[in-house]
Amino acid sequence: MTNIKDLAKRAGVSVTTVSRVLNHHPYVSDAKRIKVERAIEETGYSQNMNAVHLSKGKTNVIGVILPFLDHPYFAQVLIGISDKAQAKGQTLMLFPTNYEQEKEQEALLMLRQKQLDGVIVCSRVTPLHVLEAYVQYGPIVLLEQRHSDKFSTVFVDHQGIFNRALEYLYQKGHRNIGYTIYRRHGTHAKVREETYHAFLARHDLPFNQDYCFEGALYLEDSMDVLRKLMKLKTSPTALLVTSDQVAAGLFIHAKAFGLTIPEDVAIIGLNDEPIAKALKLTTVHIPLKSMGEALLDQVLSTHKENIQFDITLIERQTV
Amino acid sequence: MTNIKDLAKRAGVSVTTVSRVLNHHPYVSDAKRIKVERAIEETGYSQNMNAVHLSKGKTNVIGVILPFLDHPYFAQVLIGISDKAQAKGQTLMLFPTNYEQEKEQEALLMLRQKQLDGVIVCSRVTPLHVLEAYVQYGPIVLLEQRHSDKFSTVFVDHQGIFNRALEYLYQKGHRNIGYTIYRRHGTHAKVREETYHAFLARHDLPFNQDYCFEGALYLEDSMDVLRKLMKLKTSPTALLVTSDQVAAGLFIHAKAFGLTIPEDVAIIGLNDEPIAKALKLTTVHIPLKSMGEALLDQVLSTHKENIQFDITLIERQTV
Repeated sequence: MTNIKDLAKRAGVSVTTVSRVLNHHPYVSDAKRIKVERAIEETGYSQNMNAVHLSKGKTNVIGVILPFLDHPYFAQVLIGISDKAQAKGQTLMLFPTNYEQEKEQEALLMLRQKQLDGVIVCSRVTPLHVLEAYVQYGPIVLLEQRHSDKFSTVFVDHQGIFNRALEYLYQKGHRNIGYTIYRRHGTHAKVREETYHAFLARHDLPFNQDYCFEGALYLEDSMDVLRKLMKLKTSPTALLVTSDQVAAGLFIHAKAFGLTIPEDVAIIGLNDEPIAKALKLTTVHIPLKSMGEALLDQVLSTHKENIQFDITLIERQTV
Repeated sequence: MTNIKDLAKRAGVSVTTVSRVLNHHPYVSDAKRIKVERAIEETGYSQNMNAVHLSKGKTNVIGVILPFLDHPYFAQVLIGISDKAQAKGQTLMLFPTNYEQEKEQEALLMLRQKQLDGVIVCSRVTPLHVLEAYVQYGPIVLLEQRHSDKFSTVFVDHQGIFNRALEYLYQKGHRNIGYTIYRRHGTHAKVREETYHAFLARHDLPFNQDYCFEGALYLEDSMDVLRKLMKLKTSPTALLVTSDQVAAGLFIHAKAFGLTIPEDVAIIGLNDEPIAKALKLTTVHIPLKSMGEALLDQVLSTHKENIQFDITLIERQTV
């Protein structure tokens, strides 16, 4: 392989001059620059950027940890991250983890090994104290409700959203309210369960364990929710659906199950995706794209901050 | 920063031993290994992987060039690429280009600079002969209908799909057939225009320039298509919609425009996304996820191959 000395020899200039051309240094005469560029052309010389990073200690590559790419919530956040990364000249390296700690570890290791300048953690299984040990190697920012001086964070009040949606359904006269989640042991599931129990207690409503519908993330999961719903002796009259995709599926498939929305069952979604707008689903707007943009800004900054984003309940026609 | 010599000194072993521990070499006694590991712990030594890549010449990182992350077609392909990458221990670096050649160039430069082991080109503006010049630096695979011995390729017959859908609408009795596209100067637009004209000529049908609806990619773009449709003196009785997202939007919003589907206007979509299944849209199934998986396999292989995937017309209820 051609090296910088070969280039200098071929171009008839000094090694320093070649180095200056490669590094876009201003003080090189045009004549010399052309000679070096010709030598590069002729030899097919390619600068090994691993060597450049080794000397400069920067890669302009940011790692993004998220569960998987087709997760409707995280996919929106990723679009925000990606748009901002493009604007800021950063390249993204993806770490879809399927919620496995080992996969998250890969990103942290690459941060430690200087292959990434920073890491955006959209979901995590790794304990916080482990993450803290990696902060010395570069910025780690979290999509997570947390006030921390170790990490910058971006978040919405997930408990508040859940509670607000439940109270909204209660206000509208519903007393048998169920909810859907993706994973019973997921990050938000426990908080949601507690919030649900507190809501029931506050309004003196009985608990029905069949009113929590698990495994609901994608549009097609709505069929399963509807099948379970039809088997219940006392069906909920309203559902808090923690994914607009599932809410859209419920809306589309309800008729086939003899159900009218909102008369037989009211639904409120989450995220305010385009399909929710099109189908006029009542939902909660979460500014996921803006949150992604903020995460990218944070990972490039040395300043630590914790930003809470506001949410908006969007009343449409399904409650 | 601690280097390998410092580690050796601190651990009281040779530099060779430290190097063996770092490289997981089997012939190191446990006693020495523990000493080195302790020295690593104590010093916070972190192996700079840019140096390791420099010596090994491999990164296990694959670049993916695609227009943007929320493009419904490429997003599906990316999910296939990502799933396979995880299974094969590869990390993805994303290059959303917004169809700008400069952005594609970034990925090619990183291939040349050994920061990527290979590049998957899902969309391109860069001329083929430029891409060919980069093949010497690592495998480049294309999501593109091409029989080449320079590149592995994965593709479907886009012209065939378009033609088949037109003929299907004709068979069903339609004579005023329009179609939607995203970009008039996009990769497929020209082929589609030619195919459309050939179809019209074959069946002695007149050409109406208002029957090509541009700017239709996302669900919400359907409103614009409907508005344009309503302004026409002679509306098409059938639309070939080259995005299921737009087809879904047309289906959902048609009623608000006083249109019944398929009675007033028949629609056939493209891709067979979950929303198409839910809404019972007639569409063409393209195995985008499998195509993504195949692209990842190809970029890891030295063997060149050109794989055509089959498509299936899915008759549902909108034609």
